Amino acid sequence: MKITANIKEMQQIITEWSAQGKKIGFVPTMGFLHDGHQALLKKARLENDLVVLSIFVNPLQFGANEDLDSYPRDQEHDKKIAEKHGIDVIFLPDEQTMYPGPLSINLSVVRRTDVLCGRSRPGHFDGVATVLTKLFNITRPSKVYFGLKDAQQIAVVDALIEDFNFPIELIAVPTVREEDGLAKSSRNVNLLEQERSEAPYIQQALQHGREYVGNGENNSKEVIEKVRQFLERKTHGKIDYIELLSYPDLQRVETINQQVILAAAVQFQNARLIDNVIFNEYGIKTLG
Amino acid sequence: MKITANIKEMQQIITEWSAQGKKIGFVPTMGFLHDGHQALLKKARLENDLVVLSIFVNPLQFGANEDLDSYPRDQEHDKKIAEKHGIDVIFLPDEQTMYPGPLSINLSVVRRTDVLCGRSRPGHFDGVATVLTKLFNITRPSKVYFGLKDAQQIAVVDALIEDFNFPIELIAVPTVREEDGLAKSSRNVNLLEQERSEAPYIQQALQHGREYVGNGENNSKEVIEKVRQFLERKTHGKIDYIELLSYPDLQRVETINQQVILAAAVQFQNARLIDNVIFNEYGIKTLG
Repeated sequence: MKITANIKEMQQIITEWSAQGKKIGFVPTMGFLHDGHQALLKKARLENDLVVLSIFVNPLQFGANEDLDSYPRDQEHDKKIAEKHGIDVIFLPDEQTMYPGPLSINLSVVRRTDVLCGRSRPGHFDGVATVLTKLFNITRPSKVYFGLKDAQQIAVVDALIEDFNFPIELIAVPTVREEDGLAKSSRNVNLLEQERSEAPYIQQALQHGREYVGNGENNSKEVIEKVRQFLERKTHGKIDYIELLSYPDLQRVETINQQVILAAAVQFQNARLIDNVIFNEYGIKTLG
Repeated sequence: MKITANIKEMQQIITEWSAQGKKIGFVPTMGFLHDGHQALLKKARLENDLVVLSIFVNPLQFGANEDLDSYPRDQEHDKKIAEKHGIDVIFLPDEQTMYPGPLSINLSVVRRTDVLCGRSRPGHFDGVATVLTKLFNITRPSKVYFGLKDAQQIAVVDALIEDFNFPIELIAVPTVREEDGLAKSSRNVNLLEQERSEAPYIQQALQHGREYVGNGENNSKEVIEKVRQFLERKTHGKIDYIELLSYPDLQRVETINQQVILAAAVQFQNARLIDNVIFNEYGIKTLG
């Protein structure tokens, strides 16, 4: 397994592989790899000749009051995980390499972002799209892998690939969960003990909402209110949002008569958790 | 010579070539190919295994009051020129193919654009950078070719490649001129007869400015004033700008003590012409 922090070297490797007709799978991450990431690596390994993992905590996608400094890092652990999955190259740049000076070209995501996390994290998806544009050009993959936990991110990456004609196939991988249903996340380690015990209720609340639809409720507001009541009863976290939107367009819906995403974000003391469930008008899970 | 209007087909061709280790040269144009374009095609043909020419009049880079509708088009002529230069593929998309709907991702160029054409054409370079991002992903070249006539465009493309890590080498090709010194341009056909006879004075005025520096003048304002007086005396066109900037940074300079660009834009009745000369503090031409 090769590890490089150098853009030119990474591009040189890719040029050589491409000239041999190799199909490249790419898994972009911010490191501190958990089982969710491992599901991405596993799928990428199965579907490609060569797999590149990038680890870069992208400052551009963190807001001023967000957890850039406390974002967990463990490179030694990450390298072992990558080794275990037979990854060919880890691209591990530092901030100076990725952003050597102020950018002359700004990129802003103007659709699919005024909902969910985008609404409460202005600039977040601009940062995501910027770093991915750079990483796509550095690793030139055939396929790129993202987890469905951040479904809005997938919707934005889908738009980025479509708008800019990247010759890349986007693969959405189902959310991996703890035994108690909590979605795996690098941020889970920042939960206090009491918060950790409450965190699984986020997914439970969303499933309640889904079942409510299965039982015949098709009014968005009613479903959201049920989820809110459940969450407020079960956790001390501050509800950032509960939203019900068409998927993957992410448009607000009053009446549920198509595939939708029901998603929530809860702010705990040192960690903000998100989760979602995607289902149809009959309350039947359709993705993830 | 292959001609395609289809993005997927173009990408498929590129994927096959890349898998054979072929080096691809790319010449993006808006068509109506003149000798300036031919210089790009010739150089691209010499330096690459395979050459792609794109012809697309990009609406995004035209302002509301600009000459999108009157921009000259002649595909049959362009195809003959491409054939003559042994071009492998012409990529010839229509507007619906390039912009099937509103973009979700907006791209804006925030440096090197508050001068020269950028100042009087708000959004122009955003449109240029957007279409090039798309075209770079469609044609994935090793080298891309631009004429030095639009030196600001070269500075912006340089920033685009740098910021987004496109694995592409930017080749700047000297301006090709008519016998009387007028820079070749697709817009020259829109000049009235009297204007056509005046147009060569643009380059003459810039050369006067350069010689003035060669004779010891190092004050920008004085040089610009000389060029302005010359142009006002010799043409009926409206001077859009005369600027003297560091090159390639495009920063304003008071005292000329480095490589600079002296550039002018003149608005005639149906055509806006630009030209420039790049030289050092001794008035010696250094590029183009």
